[in-house]
Amino acid sequence: MFDRVLIVGLGLLGGSFALALREASLATQILGTDVNPDHECEALALGLVSALWERQNSAKPFDLIFVAVPPSQVASVLAGLSPWVHPATLVTDACSVKAPVASAMQAALGNHAGLLPAHPIAGWHTSGPSSGRRDLFAGRPVILTPLACTSPASRSLAAQLWTALGAHIVEMEAGPHDALLALISHLPHLLAYGTVNLALDRDADLSLAGPGFRDATRLAQCPAGLWADIALANHAALLPTLDAFIHELQNLKEAIRSGNQGHLTQRLARAQQARASLSDG
Amino acid sequence: MFDRVLIVGLGLLGGSFALALREASLATQILGTDVNPDHECEALALGLVSALWERQNSAKPFDLIFVAVPPSQVASVLAGLSPWVHPATLVTDACSVKAPVASAMQAALGNHAGLLPAHPIAGWHTSGPSSGRRDLFAGRPVILTPLACTSPASRSLAAQLWTALGAHIVEMEAGPHDALLALISHLPHLLAYGTVNLALDRDADLSLAGPGFRDATRLAQCPAGLWADIALANHAALLPTLDAFIHELQNLKEAIRSGNQGHLTQRLARAQQARASLSDG
Repeated sequence: MFDRVLIVGLGLLGGSFALALREASLATQILGTDVNPDHECEALALGLVSALWERQNSAKPFDLIFVAVPPSQVASVLAGLSPWVHPATLVTDACSVKAPVASAMQAALGNHAGLLPAHPIAGWHTSGPSSGRRDLFAGRPVILTPLACTSPASRSLAAQLWTALGAHIVEMEAGPHDALLALISHLPHLLAYGTVNLALDRDADLSLAGPGFRDATRLAQCPAGLWADIALANHAALLPTLDAFIHELQNLKEAIRSGNQGHLTQRLARAQQARASLSDG
Repeated sequence: MFDRVLIVGLGLLGGSFALALREASLATQILGTDVNPDHECEALALGLVSALWERQNSAKPFDLIFVAVPPSQVASVLAGLSPWVHPATLVTDACSVKAPVASAMQAALGNHAGLLPAHPIAGWHTSGPSSGRRDLFAGRPVILTPLACTSPASRSLAAQLWTALGAHIVEMEAGPHDALLALISHLPHLLAYGTVNLALDRDADLSLAGPGFRDATRLAQCPAGLWADIALANHAALLPTLDAFIHELQNLKEAIRSGNQGHLTQRLARAQQARASLSDG
């Protein structure tokens, strides 16, 4: 499907993408680059990439550029990449925030027909090249947020690519994507970090915590730098989501304070029913 | 270890306790009772109990009474049980809240030397007699909160009992227990219910939620009635915990609003480090 592929960012997502591309035999040559030289060496040693990319030694354009870095770094990693982008190069990403990332991509590459911001809803609380999993995207949704400049050919190519990796495609605009992800991903991360911080503030004995606490705070193991970056990039959607969540907590608090068992039970039962209907138990 | 055992409440905890007692051959006869007649029939059919207990047909006292009902029901289920309690009967429970439950136990049975409130930190998001697991308490901590009236013999017997079921004993006063559990259990439950409710309020497409959302909201599958009951019973510790958590969220919100990447990253990194050091990944 692709002759030359460049993966920018060789962590969990970039590494998993490389493994998945190889597994599906979708690329002739996979080059990689990372701001962290240790990650570059590790990715090379693990065979995730055939070689590291060095601008000065390479004139050939890429057929696919996959950007898997924190949102705030997208602008800088794409800056100056135009010489390696031919008219049909698919340039896509894996960021959890789309509107600001799409702007950064356009700022770097203009109205390139191959620009197609994307977000595979797949992740894990591990990080670094060694955490790559070839099946990370299998069975997962990938949200594509095409721009006005994105060509039908690029959309079709991206759909073929992700389908070949076992993912299924959902198209959405960047704004609704960012509002949805603030709610179903960025908020839960902040709640997990916040719960652990409160426990630390109070010197709580976490050796007594049960499996529920571990599930509820698993996301607090995700890299702090990455998630601070995502929260800041998505501040426009995340701040009102935090306000709405604080309002929900105040509502529960008032029911507890006033001993309103009926209202409290009703609120919890509504959530219980909806959560029980989600697959995976 | 026990001749006659009565289990009051035949849900996840009562059912698991019955299975674990049998597995360890600790009881000659296990009787059970539940406010829900369906649960009684199910427990009998599953062989969790040898027979259902009926007050009017039984004069013999019990050697162990295990109360596994929501906190608000403890007073009513123990009321009038004195005739079945002999001086050495161990009367214990599994409630997630201890101070109000200890008061209810004393109100029903006075300063009985065998009164020993307990809380096995073990659970799951399933419920009912069929959810019982014989290994639910294996490897888990059990917090004992002895009263002034609790005899050394009762403490020793309870320690032997839980140790035989594979649990390990932690002794604590009821107040610190309730503050700790508000933080490491009751708060995470409310955050899970609240997150799902906010998603419902916004008509979010939960089919797009990833494994992180599922972990973060798994506790929202717990029975709403039970958890409303626990939250109300522990209001004294839970309300200030909710206030402190809202304060933590407001702190994170302010860091995001003002773009204070350093402070935000530092807060998240502190939690990441602490969570990573908890066993179970």
